Amino acid sequence: MTSNSCGTSRLAGCQFTLFPMSDKFVDIILGALEEVDTSKVWKDTDDVSTCVRGKMVHVFDVTKALFLHAAKTGEHVAMSGTFSIGCPGDTEADSYMDEADAPVNETKLNELYRKAGCKFSLYPMGRADYMEAIYEQIDLSKHRNVEVSADHYATRLDGDVKAIFEALHQSFDSVQEKVSHVTMSFTISANSPSNKA
Amino acid sequence: MTSNSCGTSRLAGCQFTLFPMSDKFVDIILGALEEVDTSKVWKDTDDVSTCVRGKMVHVFDVTKALFLHAAKTGEHVAMSGTFSIGCPGDTEADSYMDEADAPVNETKLNELYRKAGCKFSLYPMGRADYMEAIYEQIDLSKHRNVEVSADHYATRLDGDVKAIFEALHQSFDSVQEKVSHVTMSFTISANSPSNKA
Repeated sequence: MTSNSCGTSRLAGCQFTLFPMSDKFVDIILGALEEVDTSKVWKDTDDVSTCVRGKMVHVFDVTKALFLHAAKTGEHVAMSGTFSIGCPGDTEADSYMDEADAPVNETKLNELYRKAGCKFSLYPMGRADYMEAIYEQIDLSKHRNVEVSADHYATRLDGDVKAIFEALHQSFDSVQEKVSHVTMSFTISANSPSNKA
Repeated sequence: MTSNSCGTSRLAGCQFTLFPMSDKFVDIILGALEEVDTSKVWKDTDDVSTCVRGKMVHVFDVTKALFLHAAKTGEHVAMSGTFSIGCPGDTEADSYMDEADAPVNETKLNELYRKAGCKFSLYPMGRADYMEAIYEQIDLSKHRNVEVSADHYATRLDGDVKAIFEALHQSFDSVQEKVSHVTMSFTISANSPSNKA
């Protein structure tokens, strides 16, 4: 069941939803989509969520860019979703695995800074020692440019949106090096009126 | 590490966020909270999410009631979160385990119907045979009052909000009977302008 997990680059994906807490939610979502280059990922959207699949670097590049372009509007926006890699049976869209590694949305994000709060949970699948992998990862994330705190069922990260996605990406990447099938759920929120920080 | 998983009733919890896609998001959230009896669960809220913990029946009762009371406003609302049970180390709030089993929000929901779409993923932790538990569950959900379809990394449910939460609850419950630590991520959406159904 883990025969898809070999090779130098593995198919990753993310099912996510962007939530602008605004009457202009359609414009904010479409506006963010217009700013983001999604050509390096397979993409499908319905009324509940969007799924992107391809190389891990591009999956994180696209989700980060969509959130940041939506957050720069100043409206209260959030994004929830689940990253996945090594899911048995996830074999379509392999053509996107030939894309070059350079993330295409980074340049446009260089000047954009926005504070956010994020809660995420890592799930290394099929392993009796999964809690060790989780604890190890929570510990590692302390060394990144984000404030790390513990919550029930989740780890909280606070800081700049790009630094948060960097920490998510690194955590996910380092666990998937050891565990074939890993999922990671997250909720990130910016411009919340409840955040006094 | 699974010493907390014994007993007739186990501590369950959910980290979730309610997302009203409306300028009135604060009023919709506070309005829903006012309608919902949360006295049978431990509850904590910050700017990113809300965590409720207690008996499984009350955790599902409260999340379902909050979503349905927000959805009845007719505004486009969504909720994302992760249910968890049997998490090693989750030991606080045990006092809430003495609450009677009767869900306190059901009567108020009796007359409320609202169509929604939901995607969820079940993660039985620490087991090499986790995929079987997932496939079995996806199959079971076909027999409930919801339309079931497959998606990448998730199962989609369509139908009445109460029937969807019922299916989520039953899926989660039946897997946790076999597996000590189970998590389940979900996103449910109602009144979306993209849903032509």
